[in-house]
Parts: sequence; C-alpha cells; structure tokens
Amino acid sequence: MKCSRCKAPAQVALPSHHGGFCPDCFQGFFARQVERAIHKHRMFTKDDKVLVALSGGKDSLALFLELVRQGYDVTGLHIDLGIPGSSGPARAKVEGFCERVGGTLRVVEMEGEGLPIPLVRDKVRRPICSMCGKIKRYFFNKVALDEGYSALCTGHNLDDEVGRLFANTLRWDVSYLSDQGPLLPAAGGFASKCRPLYRLTEFETAAYCFFNGIDHHVSACPYSKGASFTVRKELMNLLERNSPGSKRAFYEGFLKQGRPAFAAVEKEEGRTLEPCQRCGYPTSAEICGVCRVREMLE
Amino acid sequence: MKCSRCKAPAQVALPSHHGGFCPDCFQGFFARQVERAIHKHRMFTKDDKVLVALSGGKDSLALFLELVRQGYDVTGLHIDLGIPGSSGPARAKVEGFCERVGGTLRVVEMEGEGLPIPLVRDKVRRPICSMCGKIKRYFFNKVALDEGYSALCTGHNLDDEVGRLFANTLRWDVSYLSDQGPLLPAAGGFASKCRPLYRLTEFETAAYCFFNGIDHHVSACPYSKGASFTVRKELMNLLERNSPGSKRAFYEGFLKQGRPAFAAVEKEEGRTLEPCQRCGYPTSAEICGVCRVREMLE
Repeated sequence: MKCSRCKAPAQVALPSHHGGFCPDCFQGFFARQVERAIHKHRMFTKDDKVLVALSGGKDSLALFLELVRQGYDVTGLHIDLGIPGSSGPARAKVEGFCERVGGTLRVVEMEGEGLPIPLVRDKVRRPICSMCGKIKRYFFNKVALDEGYSALCTGHNLDDEVGRLFANTLRWDVSYLSDQGPLLPAAGGFASKCRPLYRLTEFETAAYCFFNGIDHHVSACPYSKGASFTVRKELMNLLERNSPGSKRAFYEGFLKQGRPAFAAVEKEEGRTLEPCQRCGYPTSAEICGVCRVREMLE
Repeated sequence: MKCSRCKAPAQVALPSHHGGFCPDCFQGFFARQVERAIHKHRMFTKDDKVLVALSGGKDSLALFLELVRQGYDVTGLHIDLGIPGSSGPARAKVEGFCERVGGTLRVVEMEGEGLPIPLVRDKVRRPICSMCGKIKRYFFNKVALDEGYSALCTGHNLDDEVGRLFANTLRWDVSYLSDQGPLLPAAGGFASKCRPLYRLTEFETAAYCFFNGIDHHVSACPYSKGASFTVRKELMNLLERNSPGSKRAFYEGFLKQGRPAFAAVEKEEGRTLEPCQRCGYPTSAEICGVCRVREMLE
C-alpha cells in the first residue's frame, strides 16, 4: 500500500479513512484530527491556559506532545496515586517525558492529601476503580479551578468514548447520555472538560507514540480487572472490522441525534448540583464523594 | 440440571432466567411470557378479532398456536410472494399447519395483486428486501383495516427486536427509535401492531416449535443476503453469552428510558402522514411506496 498523501510506502493502514499513511503524513493526519476536534467544539484557543491530565499512558502523553507542537499553553497534571509498584514507574515516565519535551508539570500526591489509593481500597467497601476515578476527577477539577486554567484536557480516544457510549446505551442511562461528548463546558463549579483525541482510535495514538518515540507506562493497574469493559470494546472492534467507520459513525450520530434527545429529558428531570458543605466543590449530595471517603479514612 | 419448576430433568437451559425447564414446564413458561406481553401492553383481549401474519417460519407459527391455545379469536394471514421455489413450500407449510390446528387462514397472492416479487425485483431498481418488506406490511395493514381486525400481530421475537434496536441505535435514527416497541397503537390509517413474542428469544420459539412438532419453513429467501443484520445479531449474542440477560435489559431499558426521549423529539420534529392519493392508505409522500411500485411495473 502507498501513502494516500505522498505515495511513499504506507506504514499505517486506516480502513475507516479508505487509505493509509507513511509515518510523516500520518503525523500530519493526527495533527489535523486534533486541530479539527479543538476548533469544531471550540474547546480552547492559544490564549487559554490549558491543563492536561497525564496518567503516563500513551493517550495522555500523545495528546500533551501534540498540543505542545501546535503551540498551546499547556501544563501537565499528574496524580500520584501511591500504589506500590505501579504509581512510581508511571510518575517516572511522566516526569521523563515532560523533561524531554520541555513541558511544565504539576504533580499532586494522594499520599500528601491523606488519600493514598491502597488505604482507600482497604477502608472503603466500594469498587476501588470507581473510587479512584472519582478521586482523580476531583483533583483534576480542583487544580484546574484553583489555579485558573480555562480548560482541562484528558486523553480519551475514540475507542474510550465509543466503549463508554455503548455501555451507557446498553443501560439507557439518560443522565450519562445527556452529557457525554468531546466537550463539557464549564458550569456550576466544574472546569471545562475537553477530549481532543476523540476523533483518533487507540491504534492511532499508539502509532503516534511509536513514531515519536514516546516512552509510556504500559502495565495495567494492579487493582483493576476491567473484564466487562474489555468485552464491550471487543464487540465494537468486531463491528468496526466488519464495517470500517462504524465506531465513528455511531459516536458522531450520537452527538448529532442522540445526545440532544437525552439532554432535553435531563433538563426537565435532572438532578441539580450544590457546593459540598465541606470542600465547596459541586456534589448532588450534601457532602461530596471525596469528603465522604476522607471521613471513612479518619 | 433439573427443571426449575417440577425438578424433572431439564431439557431447556435459560441462563438469563437463571434456570431451566422440562418440556412441559417450558410450555408453561412460554405461555406466561406471551400472556404477560399481551397484558402489560394491553395489546388485545378475547373480544377482539386478531390477525396474525404467518410467513411459514417458526416464530409466526409458534405465535399463532399459542394464541389459539389461549383462546384468542385469531385469523392467519399469509402473503404469497410468488417467488419460484420458495413461496410455494412456505405457503404449503402455513396451510398444513392451519389445517392441523384448526385455524382460519386468509391468503393474499401478490401475483393476483399484480405485484409478484420476482417482477418487482426485475423492474424496480431498489434493494428487493426493503421493497418486499414494504409490500408485505402494506397488505398486512390493508387486510387488517379493510376486514375489521382490531390488532395485527407479527412473530418478532426478542432477538429480532434487539437486532433492530441495535441497528437503529448505531445510526441514532430518531424516527425509528421513537416508535419501536412491542405495541404500536392504531393511528392515522394504521392498524394496531402487536409483537406478543418480544419477551422470548429465537431459541425459545425454536424450542416451542420442536416440542409441539410444528413443521415450519426453514430455508432462507433466495433473494436475501442479510449479512450485516447477521453480524449485529451475532454481536448481541456474544454480549448475552458474556452476561446473560443483557439483551432483555437493553430492550426493556430502551422502552422505559430511551424511547420516551426520542418520542418527545419526534413529536416536535416528526413528519406527518397523509392518505395516499391513489389507494388512501397513509404515506409521507403524495403517492405511497406500493402505488409507486405499481406505476413502475405498468
């Protein structure tokens, strides 16, 4: 196969785009997809201070590098979860990467916040993955708001988005379906949340990391099992193989036709959020989830 | 495994119901699912004249037998499509079956209506499966209305419904999503449409046919290919195997949470139907699809 752009030998085949690219043209393709995502949804501009959550995995590092290259004013945010044997290596990858690309990095340690994940796992009798996710999102939002960032970016790719959309759709969870998307504008104590990689697949961000020699953290978290999520991703991959472009059509169709229907219902029936009586960040209860975890650890 | 009801050896395993049944108790289970569907959605009562579309396949014959057994006033309707080598054997199965169970049968011949499917296939440059479906539904509705039936039943099972729902959801087709369901009440020139088998899977209706010795038409239509539909059904089967009950939860959740959201949008933006200027049956154009086919054949 030849590159769809320059006719050099192609190295990445993209059936859903009916073509393939050589490494250089692939990087151009990747850049255009990110650019289009940012512009189409008016995520942020070059005047904005942008915070990028960096787990150390391929997606977040690829996103950070691409935003640096496009000239955005980005700062990385890494949450050190304090999980033995896992958080150390992940943090080291993030620090090494930021040094290499000359990016500013902010690290928040859960140990220092009194919320190391191993302790949460021992003391709180709820699924650790959902608790850990809640804690991470809380600090993403807190740092973004406290330190005056106008946008908070995460490295969710098309496969993440489609897997989550499929899961939410199987349950017809109107509350989640009403606001899933590449941009959740700032509102009621929440920073604006952006997913500039939503047009790119997991394979595409992996290829980008490969071509740019990004040394990312690969091991799965020792606490996660993630079986059902994997099955749903696999189903979407089968569908995509059978009919290239299905994933993207499903997601784009949702944004255009599905989400507005759910948003209308949610507007009528949805819950309202109030500031947490402890920390002041938004919650649907009196005390937010993270402050309740703190209580349980005391 | 033992029967969940009577402890005799089970012959049908139903993982999504966490159990299994012997042949006798399975028939009781099947009957209760049909009864529940009819009552829950107020499809029809024993005072109603009910028309059941009989293709000759397992689902429609199983439905007809069960409705006869439950004492409903049912008449079978078979559309003889006029496809050589296929329509003859299908019609013979339907006629033999109705004779055996003592059911009234009404046959409409597409040849006699000037619409034999082989001719439609030759003269109309559109996918034959969708044209054939359109023609069949037209005559189901016409017979039901012209001859005073209060309900029109089809043998769609849970797998059919879930496959169609999945397809409509992948496309986020608001118009189809706003009214898919086990009951579409009579309105604007359409007879009430009922799907009393929507709680039963394809395997369950096949088992019912087997236990009742129903001799049904098995061969696929020589004109159909049906590849993509098969892939989507297979995906749903993988999901079901991974987590029994997923299909039903997806469908029931849609009826409860999904459909109302789409129905609200459709009510605001949907198309209105008017009587066809030729035949008087409802259409969104001036001339309905079947009358347009007639024109093309002239």
